[in-house]
Amino acid sequence: MHVCVAAVRVNGVPCKDPATVTPDDFFFAGVDRPGSAASRRYGFTALPVQIPGPNTLGASHTRVDVAPGAVFPPHYHPRASETAVVLDGAVYFGFVTSYPDNRVYAKVFRKGDVFAVPQGLVHFLYNNGTEPAALYATLSSQNPGLVILADALFGAGFPDDLLAKTFLTDLDTAHKIGAKFRS
Amino acid sequence: MHVCVAAVRVNGVPCKDPATVTPDDFFFAGVDRPGSAASRRYGFTALPVQIPGPNTLGASHTRVDVAPGAVFPPHYHPRASETAVVLDGAVYFGFVTSYPDNRVYAKVFRKGDVFAVPQGLVHFLYNNGTEPAALYATLSSQNPGLVILADALFGAGFPDDLLAKTFLTDLDTAHKIGAKFRS
Amino acid sequence: MHVCVAAVRVNGVPCKDPATVTPDDFFFAGVDRPGSAASRRYGFTALPVQIPGPNTLGASHTRVDVAPGAVFPPHYHPRASETAVVLDGAVYFGFVTSYPDNRVYAKVFRKGDVFAVPQGLVHFLYNNGTEPAALYATLSSQNPGLVILADALFGAGFPDDLLAKTFLTDLDTAHKIGAKFRS
Amino acid sequence: MHVCVAAVRVNGVPCKDPATVTPDDFFFAGVDRPGSAASRRYGFTALPVQIPGPNTLGASHTRVDVAPGAVFPPHYHPRASETAVVLDGAVYFGFVTSYPDNRVYAKVFRKGDVFAVPQGLVHFLYNNGTEPAALYATLSSQNPGLVILADALFGAGFPDDLLAKTFLTDLDTAHKIGAKFRS
Amino acid sequence: MHVCVAAVRVNGVPCKDPATVTPDDFFFAGVDRPGSAASRRYGFTALPVQIPGPNTLGASHTRVDVAPGAVFPPHYHPRASETAVVLDGAVYFGFVTSYPDNRVYAKVFRKGDVFAVPQGLVHFLYNNGTEPAALYATLSSQNPGLVILADALFGAGFPDDLLAKTFLTDLDTAHKIGAKFRS
Amino acid sequence: MHVCVAAVRVNGVPCKDPATVTPDDFFFAGVDRPGSAASRRYGFTALPVQIPGPNTLGASHTRVDVAPGAVFPPHYHPRASETAVVLDGAVYFGFVTSYPDNRVYAKVFRKGDVFAVPQGLVHFLYNNGTEPAALYATLSSQNPGLVILADALFGAGFPDDLLAKTFLTDLDTAHKIGAKFRS
Repeated sequence: MHVCVAAVRVNGVPCKDPATVTPDDFFFAGVDRPGSAASRRYGFTALPVQIPGPNTLGASHTRVDVAPGAVFPPHYHPRASETAVVLDGAVYFGFVTSYPDNRVYAKVFRKGDVFAVPQGLVHFLYNNGTEPAALYATLSSQNPGLVILADALFGAGFPDDLLAKTFLTDLDTAHKIGAKFRS
Repeated sequence: MHVCVAAVRVNGVPCKDPATVTPDDFFFAGVDRPGSAASRRYGFTALPVQIPGPNTLGASHTRVDVAPGAVFPPHYHPRASETAVVLDGAVYFGFVTSYPDNRVYAKVFRKGDVFAVPQGLVHFLYNNGTEPAALYATLSSQNPGLVILADALFGAGFPDDLLAKTFLTDLDTAHKIGAKFRS
Repeated sequence: MHVCVAAVRVNGVPCKDPATVTPDDFFFAGVDRPGSAASRRYGFTALPVQIPGPNTLGASHTRVDVAPGAVFPPHYHPRASETAVVLDGAVYFGFVTSYPDNRVYAKVFRKGDVFAVPQGLVHFLYNNGTEPAALYATLSSQNPGLVILADALFGAGFPDDLLAKTFLTDLDTAHKIGAKFRS
Repeated sequence: MHVCVAAVRVNGVPCKDPATVTPDDFFFAGVDRPGSAASRRYGFTALPVQIPGPNTLGASHTRVDVAPGAVFPPHYHPRASETAVVLDGAVYFGFVTSYPDNRVYAKVFRKGDVFAVPQGLVHFLYNNGTEPAALYATLSSQNPGLVILADALFGAGFPDDLLAKTFLTDLDTAHKIGAKFRS
Repeated sequence: MHVCVAAVRVNGVPCKDPATVTPDDFFFAGVDRPGSAASRRYGFTALPVQIPGPNTLGASHTRVDVAPGAVFPPHYHPRASETAVVLDGAVYFGFVTSYPDNRVYAKVFRKGDVFAVPQGLVHFLYNNGTEPAALYATLSSQNPGLVILADALFGAGFPDDLLAKTFLTDLDTAHKIGAKFRS
Repeated sequence: MHVCVAAVRVNGVPCKDPATVTPDDFFFAGVDRPGSAASRRYGFTALPVQIPGPNTLGASHTRVDVAPGAVFPPHYHPRASETAVVLDGAVYFGFVTSYPDNRVYAKVFRKGDVFAVPQGLVHFLYNNGTEPAALYATLSSQNPGLVILADALFGAGFPDDLLAKTFLTDLDTAHKIGAKFRS
């Protein structure tokens, strides 16, 4: 069979011997329940679908749960476009177009709704309702990457004067925001 | 915005004027319910997700419902790999590797299970249980194509002697099977 | 030289040391005669052109011979389009478009004729004349794959009830056809 | 000649008649001087190289000037990797790896130094010296896109509560920073 | 059918209405005989296979005939690798690796032999025997391009001093060779 | 970080352990001065930018210096298009379109001018002035390849009769030119 079944989930690893491939190499269970590892800062939970078989198939999938009041803050995927279907609940979703427009496309999505995000654009989820929301997201790469904007800006150790200039603010404000990301 | 929002759903059409793009161009509703157009022959229902925005994003999505006793018979997509998550019920799913192995990978999938099919390989769904089954399928192309094997073999008007030789059978058997596909 | 000359014919293997590359790594002989390994079931012979050098060049070639009365039954290549030129004799060739059209494009091809098959579509060769036919086929991938429809349906061990539903026929007919593929 | 010379600079437009193509279609002048349109907010100047000929060649180029004290604030290109050579002066440059590492790679670059940024990663320029700095940047796409993080976050009209949650801060701080971007 | 059948042979033209597509759109006749338009300078004949259907299939084909004593002089294809099978006769074929090796891989090829040329490398055909030779060549692009080195050097109007420096020779020799290409 | 930092500069090698990656893996110094290894035959100097980090980023860069009276003789890159900016001095640059046009696009380029060359087309640099010229060239591949036409024709050991036929000249002239390339 002309399929590379990886022994580990990173793309590019040596393939499993085809003689030892089983149906389970193309299978993953548990997307009907939230994942267990919630973001400490933001309260969302991401459960990645890990199937050894599709390592070279050019797609990956994640179940995302967002509790009431929680956000999956503005982020993007450097190497993938995304679509997602709402499995349960409702969530305020939006994405922002690139420079110089910075135009936001946003609305509340409910169970059975599907939305799409072009490759590399900033998008967010905000559960501003009272019920838990669950989504099933598809990314057009097996190695899409994730950049959370606030983490990249305040969690990487940028000098305060660069941050102040970036946000058109003073050194003190920049430093105070950064403190939350250093703790 | 660097996204081609098509006015019609065929890939390659002229793009919508960016100034007239709205959130709804990236949105589709109704995946929480089965589609309405069931296959007359096989009893499955396919509801394609039609979003104008992701016309160039390299993916497409379909909700598939399979009633008890119904099949989505052996088929393949010439231009896409596939993954699918079971939304409700259970279904016997499998795919077949290529020549000369013709090895089948199959098992029953239940709610929350995900499976993957490499590009162009034959696969099927069979609801051999008693509850309706629903799936959400993702294809790695906005124009994946679909070939149903039995339709291609018996619905295209092949001469009976070619079909008899193909199935290692007699002209009469080939002709009788074909009759069902011509009516 | 920026060419990966593989030691074995599978794509992706470690490359031969460029210092040991010779003209023979880019050469194959014998396409002027039929191959020796005829299909037991169908009577066609396929002689693959095996050149170590073009392992990464994105094409592969095969000489195909079809004896009078023999077929290369309906099949497709999951990862390649195909063109072929008739070297000798004549052959009835056709391909079928995808769902929902299932339209067949077919005619008799003679020496010096060339035909083309889009990627992943079902096609066949049938020598319904009295002279041997020979073709030289080009596939747009070094790893095109091959799926013979009848083998995938009856040679993979599908349950009889799935096959009966697939062909709109009874269990007995499905079982009888399958017996030929199990022997 | 098999080159699409576009009449306008957007990729995908109808090509110029090859008979009317001239050397100037493959030529651009002025990269030896800064561009004239400085960013009002940040003080950097970008001069895009606009050559009609290479519309389909998969690369684009920009001269960037950063005055002492000015920044090209954290940004990324959704569809391109980047390399740049320093033509004059010195500049503090860095990029940040993706989640969950958020590791920064940064140092001062001087005349004749070249740096590279993987596709889609956040990077910045900060002239923390006393001389003007000039760079010549190459992007691996003719349509790379640009997202400036602060603009996407504060210039798109996100609700203040989303911004407060994103930056782990209070509504008032979020609102005050946003005010600068709304004026 | 998801195939673009072009009305003219240039890639990118508007597609034919699928309803008017016929088997002949995927068919070409005459490869069993030499083409009629021999090169005035070199004596080879090239007969391109022109099939409207495979306009987007990523391959093209040409029958090449080389009379005894004639050459298809050193040339390359900017956008394709090549393989070719000898249909009749014998021909001395070779290709040259790139800088700095400039290593030649060459030998005499006879009926039924196949050779391969990596993308963009210089290659030639020389019939140094007494029988006409015929080949069937496959290029891995529908728009491979052709550059004949001597034509590019002497047929484009380069100044004589550039040519003299290029060939490490004197102005007079450069001018004399060029005269043959200007007549 | 999802970047392959190669230990050696050839594409495809095993990646460096991400934990040992440093800013210097994305950095190269010295483009403000000419390289040291001038071509013995032609007098140009090429200084390749060697950055381990961008091994998989799809681009490469070279500083090229051409002394007064020197040439970078007609050559092409089999796997890349090129753009270049003039850093200092002036140079006569041109490229030639493919068969059958062989049309030359050429003019003198000065400091701050940028030119573009479509993939695989023949181009040259000729410093016919009195000042040294320096350029910074960008190629759209990390493995673009280089073929110098005169070297490929006269440095690979082609038989004299093939060369004579190629240049429409006599054996003696072909042999004499070749002698310069064999010494």
